[in-house]
Amino acid sequence: MEANPYGVAALQLCATADKDANLAVIEELAGRAAARGARLVVAPEVCLWRGPQAQEPQIAEPIPGDSSARLSTIAARFAIHFVAGSILERGPDGRCYNTSLLFAPDGSLRASYRKIHLFDVDISAEVSVRESDTRIAGDTPVLAATELGAIGMSICYDLRFPELYRELARAGAQILVVPSAFTLTTGAAHWEVLLRARAIENQCYVIAANQYGAGMAGITNYGNSMIVDPWGTVIARAGSDRNEVLVAEVDPSHLARVRTMLPALKHVRLAAGGA
Amino acid sequence: MEANPYGVAALQLCATADKDANLAVIEELAGRAAARGARLVVAPEVCLWRGPQAQEPQIAEPIPGDSSARLSTIAARFAIHFVAGSILERGPDGRCYNTSLLFAPDGSLRASYRKIHLFDVDISAEVSVRESDTRIAGDTPVLAATELGAIGMSICYDLRFPELYRELARAGAQILVVPSAFTLTTGAAHWEVLLRARAIENQCYVIAANQYGAGMAGITNYGNSMIVDPWGTVIARAGSDRNEVLVAEVDPSHLARVRTMLPALKHVRLAAGGA
Repeated sequence: MEANPYGVAALQLCATADKDANLAVIEELAGRAAARGARLVVAPEVCLWRGPQAQEPQIAEPIPGDSSARLSTIAARFAIHFVAGSILERGPDGRCYNTSLLFAPDGSLRASYRKIHLFDVDISAEVSVRESDTRIAGDTPVLAATELGAIGMSICYDLRFPELYRELARAGAQILVVPSAFTLTTGAAHWEVLLRARAIENQCYVIAANQYGAGMAGITNYGNSMIVDPWGTVIARAGSDRNEVLVAEVDPSHLARVRTMLPALKHVRLAAGGA
Repeated sequence: MEANPYGVAALQLCATADKDANLAVIEELAGRAAARGARLVVAPEVCLWRGPQAQEPQIAEPIPGDSSARLSTIAARFAIHFVAGSILERGPDGRCYNTSLLFAPDGSLRASYRKIHLFDVDISAEVSVRESDTRIAGDTPVLAATELGAIGMSICYDLRFPELYRELARAGAQILVVPSAFTLTTGAAHWEVLLRARAIENQCYVIAANQYGAGMAGITNYGNSMIVDPWGTVIARAGSDRNEVLVAEVDPSHLARVRTMLPALKHVRLAAGGA
């Protein structure tokens, strides 16, 4: 892991069905983040295209493909590590994966992660959606070793599943990224608590970039992008209704100190599937 | 599970090294809880004796034994399900287990659970302790089937280990109990967040009875006993400096509704401790 403190950023935005417009917003926000010293920048889930779910099979692309190429140019232009939220990756049978991409500062694709837990819920008339109607789930946790530290990847609804983050932490994660389109209803009730819990129990920095405004199936998203330190303190937090660049500092010595004084990761005792 | 709503309670107290005095306090608080309609009552960790750690091997008793017998009379007297926090159970080699007991309303011992994760930390000059100096860890999660519901047992520092609660939830837990002597320092930073996260991710009621005042190794405890519903809402919360009886309602239909509208427990895809 990098030895000295460095800047990280979460980008908050409200993507539409216009890829060019979304890309311009992402590039502008990423540029502002880089100008403020961020070396790792995280954009939200489905940051490049949000439209009617029925259109997803037509929108989905292979990776690498045109969309991943365009996102890689943002990493290269600003020489940042860039977690490009997620894009829809063409899968078998006319369905797609919800896939997060991590680009290195030279624009090369360092890691990709297919969302494991799909959001199939029926919370209210306003919040009812079946992500699995058009998307299929990944099955493999992804930890990316970078010069900034080991980055554990996840997407949105994954946040409810502690076993994913536990596996990333056991594999050595120091930073957990959670690009999201978390809903207003569930966000107000659960977003901050779950982000802080993942930080506390895994003693990692958590960078969570959320969308706001109207998202999938017309569900309103919560905004409130956050960066949390390994003690569980929210060190940066966005509002809920506008584009924002949220910058905070990752301090490797703080992470090391937390793990030394409260060595909970060394106290994990239950193995796969329980005792 | 019981079909209708029923009362539950967390008892908050500050145990000393005087077993008779502690028992009198527990009995008085349990009686008040029962009078307010609580059918399940949870006392804190080490509620019957808190003294110098070096004396623990002499204080520890077999189970059943005198201490468990005296605690069972509380359950029987008030005809309640009673989680008697924990007592020190005599173990091999002069050491002891930190063991939680669940009594049925007839006073019979329904379940016992030996704390799996021991608190060995060095957070500051004030908060430095090695529970494992005198105690040995259990290795078996315990879920107790009762007429009120399936009760998953845990103790204090266990709260930091989501895989324990995940295993209890997978086995069918509806109520999670967390008798504790959580410290002021870590409590202010982590207690509420972790209790709510366990409730949210496992969609269970959480009943957390904490000590306040001076505890093990002179560490001040945090109080703030809490009861959390399966949506993660704190439905009862104590202060930090006095004996309290915290009563709230478990509503089985609310638990069922949460699990139906957001069926996250059906979406678990990774094994508890890793894929």
